[in-house]
Amino acid sequence: MHNRPHASGNSVASTRLVSRQRRPRGTEVPLGKVTVGGKRIVVIAGPCAVESRRQMFAVGRVVKKAGAHAVRGGSFKPRTSPYSFRGLGEKALRILKEVRDACGLAVVTEVVSLSELPMVLNYADVLQIGSRNMQNFALLEEVGKTGRPVLLKRGMMATIEEFLLSVEYILSQGNDKVILCERGIRTFERYTRNTLDISAVPLLKRLTHLPVIVDPSHGTGVRELVPAVSKASIAAGADGLLIEVHPNPDKALSDGFQSLAPHEFTALMKDLALIARAVGRSL
Amino acid sequence: MHNRPHASGNSVASTRLVSRQRRPRGTEVPLGKVTVGGKRIVVIAGPCAVESRRQMFAVGRVVKKAGAHAVRGGSFKPRTSPYSFRGLGEKALRILKEVRDACGLAVVTEVVSLSELPMVLNYADVLQIGSRNMQNFALLEEVGKTGRPVLLKRGMMATIEEFLLSVEYILSQGNDKVILCERGIRTFERYTRNTLDISAVPLLKRLTHLPVIVDPSHGTGVRELVPAVSKASIAAGADGLLIEVHPNPDKALSDGFQSLAPHEFTALMKDLALIARAVGRSL
Amino acid sequence: MHNRPHASGNSVASTRLVSRQRRPRGTEVPLGKVTVGGKRIVVIAGPCAVESRRQMFAVGRVVKKAGAHAVRGGSFKPRTSPYSFRGLGEKALRILKEVRDACGLAVVTEVVSLSELPMVLNYADVLQIGSRNMQNFALLEEVGKTGRPVLLKRGMMATIEEFLLSVEYILSQGNDKVILCERGIRTFERYTRNTLDISAVPLLKRLTHLPVIVDPSHGTGVRELVPAVSKASIAAGADGLLIEVHPNPDKALSDGFQSLAPHEFTALMKDLALIARAVGRSL
Amino acid sequence: MHNRPHASGNSVASTRLVSRQRRPRGTEVPLGKVTVGGKRIVVIAGPCAVESRRQMFAVGRVVKKAGAHAVRGGSFKPRTSPYSFRGLGEKALRILKEVRDACGLAVVTEVVSLSELPMVLNYADVLQIGSRNMQNFALLEEVGKTGRPVLLKRGMMATIEEFLLSVEYILSQGNDKVILCERGIRTFERYTRNTLDISAVPLLKRLTHLPVIVDPSHGTGVRELVPAVSKASIAAGADGLLIEVHPNPDKALSDGFQSLAPHEFTALMKDLALIARAVGRSL
Repeated sequence: MHNRPHASGNSVASTRLVSRQRRPRGTEVPLGKVTVGGKRIVVIAGPCAVESRRQMFAVGRVVKKAGAHAVRGGSFKPRTSPYSFRGLGEKALRILKEVRDACGLAVVTEVVSLSELPMVLNYADVLQIGSRNMQNFALLEEVGKTGRPVLLKRGMMATIEEFLLSVEYILSQGNDKVILCERGIRTFERYTRNTLDISAVPLLKRLTHLPVIVDPSHGTGVRELVPAVSKASIAAGADGLLIEVHPNPDKALSDGFQSLAPHEFTALMKDLALIARAVGRSL
Repeated sequence: MHNRPHASGNSVASTRLVSRQRRPRGTEVPLGKVTVGGKRIVVIAGPCAVESRRQMFAVGRVVKKAGAHAVRGGSFKPRTSPYSFRGLGEKALRILKEVRDACGLAVVTEVVSLSELPMVLNYADVLQIGSRNMQNFALLEEVGKTGRPVLLKRGMMATIEEFLLSVEYILSQGNDKVILCERGIRTFERYTRNTLDISAVPLLKRLTHLPVIVDPSHGTGVRELVPAVSKASIAAGADGLLIEVHPNPDKALSDGFQSLAPHEFTALMKDLALIARAVGRSL
Repeated sequence: MHNRPHASGNSVASTRLVSRQRRPRGTEVPLGKVTVGGKRIVVIAGPCAVESRRQMFAVGRVVKKAGAHAVRGGSFKPRTSPYSFRGLGEKALRILKEVRDACGLAVVTEVVSLSELPMVLNYADVLQIGSRNMQNFALLEEVGKTGRPVLLKRGMMATIEEFLLSVEYILSQGNDKVILCERGIRTFERYTRNTLDISAVPLLKRLTHLPVIVDPSHGTGVRELVPAVSKASIAAGADGLLIEVHPNPDKALSDGFQSLAPHEFTALMKDLALIARAVGRSL
Repeated sequence: MHNRPHASGNSVASTRLVSRQRRPRGTEVPLGKVTVGGKRIVVIAGPCAVESRRQMFAVGRVVKKAGAHAVRGGSFKPRTSPYSFRGLGEKALRILKEVRDACGLAVVTEVVSLSELPMVLNYADVLQIGSRNMQNFALLEEVGKTGRPVLLKRGMMATIEEFLLSVEYILSQGNDKVILCERGIRTFERYTRNTLDISAVPLLKRLTHLPVIVDPSHGTGVRELVPAVSKASIAAGADGLLIEVHPNPDKALSDGFQSLAPHEFTALMKDLALIARAVGRSL
């Protein structure tokens, strides 16, 4: 009947590399031509998985026009079932690069394991580490060594403390270009896929010097809830959003039920600009 | 190995009294001179417990000046331990009434059990049912019979579906003046007291015709996080907030660590007005 | 960012009435002609709700023959939905008393609210407080005042610490005849209705001097899992079991999917006797 | 507001390789000279981490004498913090092999990432995949290809359904020598490190044809609770146990608070033999 360890209080020890005390003004992480963590709110948008050149160009043009700064799309998909669609691999990476060049959008894509890391480095501006890999420590250290910006998603079962210790694995390799992403935690609720932890946004901003973004698509799992939660995230102080957009959500190979259609995304961007201004920022 | 029942999909059955389909334009519930559920954002503020006339007048004047519409304060406190402070009882109710008359604020206070319901009816504009009583069905039916506005808090481990069925107990007695309150659910996280479920706001607004407010004080349990989460709630579509304010939080008899000091509350109200405007509403 | 309070370590403070340190040899609570908390394992069996005299006599005869010590059955049912069957009320209580007299079984039945407590006292040997009422503090104090044995179920969202503080409400009224019941907590798992916390059994036995029983029917919500979890509970040191049995589970008005049929219960009792012997006890 | 997918009912589809319907009599997996999944209960014991030859020989002799069938010990430790002890690497593996040869115990040790898999294959009888790697799909497929017996731990916040889909990754590579291990899930409870899901044992035995063991050390995180939960696991139908034993728990480099001392383990084995007999098995 021992006490369980828990968070140590008012702040993260300043001996930790992630601690806000080590860099009170905060860190800005490059995302193509902009940075995350400054006055500007950044938006990364795109489908769960890259399915075809046609799909990605359709998305890229729409989200660029609506004001997004980067495009996302899975090339290698970690799937709960071995029988699900697992991504187009390098073909997807090449498509992403084409979209980047044609539309002027940075590319964010997930690295699933060590073996494809060198390949992904050839194409991605930002390396995403997904929530299932938040404690894949070997992978964290390797992306740390690359020096490339990293978008690290909180595990769906991870405490804030564990999330920050995973960040420490990356920082301890000399790479401080890390974007933190809240994407919802697992609870007993059934209307939603996860429960987005909105308080994680101001908490992470206080404890660390790193930028914090929110993924409202996985965080709720419900398309109709994405706009409200996106607005809430910016109001809570998030530095950006990662939003699933698909040209035809009902035909998506994965996660269509939580993806916005192009017109929904465009309308949301206008609303977000108003919220950004209300908190002294711009989109 | 039976399937577990879960939420039935896109909407609550229209046979339920709470269903949005039964009243698409929504219900406005009276709160003193204003209503909850219309264009105006309402704010209910005050300490966890009524401690003294002096304390309550100090709070009342400050929150009124800052723009709050109602004062809250516990008269009978449901406490986890029988050895904790349990409230001043009717003395507290009399103080609340004096503050109402002097400051022009509506009074919201909790009914803990059937036995003091008649007494509370003499003093309160709105009857609060706390999260521990969300499934005290006898109490729900009795407050339903009174016809008085009710503020029902979601249980800390209740699904949205269970929350809505508890609302049905009140509505089925002919009382549709119910304000729903999201106040955080229990998870494994330890930096915060509860995890505020921000997606519950747009979800409840879609499923029901009732107004929805948020309690960021219990929802986070951390004073420093209250402003960000309050702003997020309004951005997500909440109709109001229930905020703990104490003239001297560090000396509060309960919940001081999550209460705002007067100057913090005043500053927050200015920020909230900006967010309200950004979503087409006013404070 | 304050620390969250949590359990205080190796033991419950000896100033608490529930503490094992106050009565190292443990407390035995009367259940009709036997006691709970001694060498004997006790079994309380019966349907979720009393539906008819015929049903209850059928159950009573079967469970008595199989070796059960008490019969259970709901007279007033707390239901999540106001539109569900809520019990036969005093008629059910009269049936339970007849079964007791005819079969020689003690009667355990739930008290749902203060208003029917006097009536239930006329019929019940043990007052059950259900998990939704674990923090109905007014009710806890009143059953404490009666001096009647109480079976208190852990709330589905309650920590062990909160459970023990609720027990303190009863003990502080001078009534130490309290049986603790683990009945599963709410988690994200979907194959089962709740997750039975088996470690709560040895933990409660160490921290308190009170007897501990397990409800495997609600704890799993799945008939096929009840036998294994019942055996596990006795092996873990439980003093007894509360098992749902229905003469025709598929036609039960409530909880049929988790009720054992008579022949299943009879077979289980034989297996339980073997486990009881293996841990130095008898059934 | 879509329905969330959930478990599909009474059984796992027979098209899945893991389904009990594909092999009703069950699978026995080799563990050195014995098998897991037959009449015999198997016990794997040892420290969290291999710290020295002296430590491991002390443990090996004690657990062998007490009746254990295999020794465990971490060579590469996945640690939440990059600043914690991470294991002795190949030196630890060599020590484990010496203990195996000297004591006649099979060796179970964890594979943390793809890079050290070839090395671990030179030393281990059974490859353990830890709970943080339950969804490291690349690693699952690689251990599947080796054909070596695998001990797969359930993730600390994985549903049974997700656990079984991860198993499918291994089976789909032609390796059906998989031992399932329940090790506790994360909940809100604070007296214990995790909440051991005892119902997972009979549930997994019904749904799959694979052997199921329990890790009561991580499952509770509390040394004093390990004996009771071990007995419960065998009574519930588990095919074996994975127990942390350390020659001097208070000086262990990791997890000492949940490790049994040698005399505690020896006493437990005697009690387990009695429970095994009560359920028609032997130790």
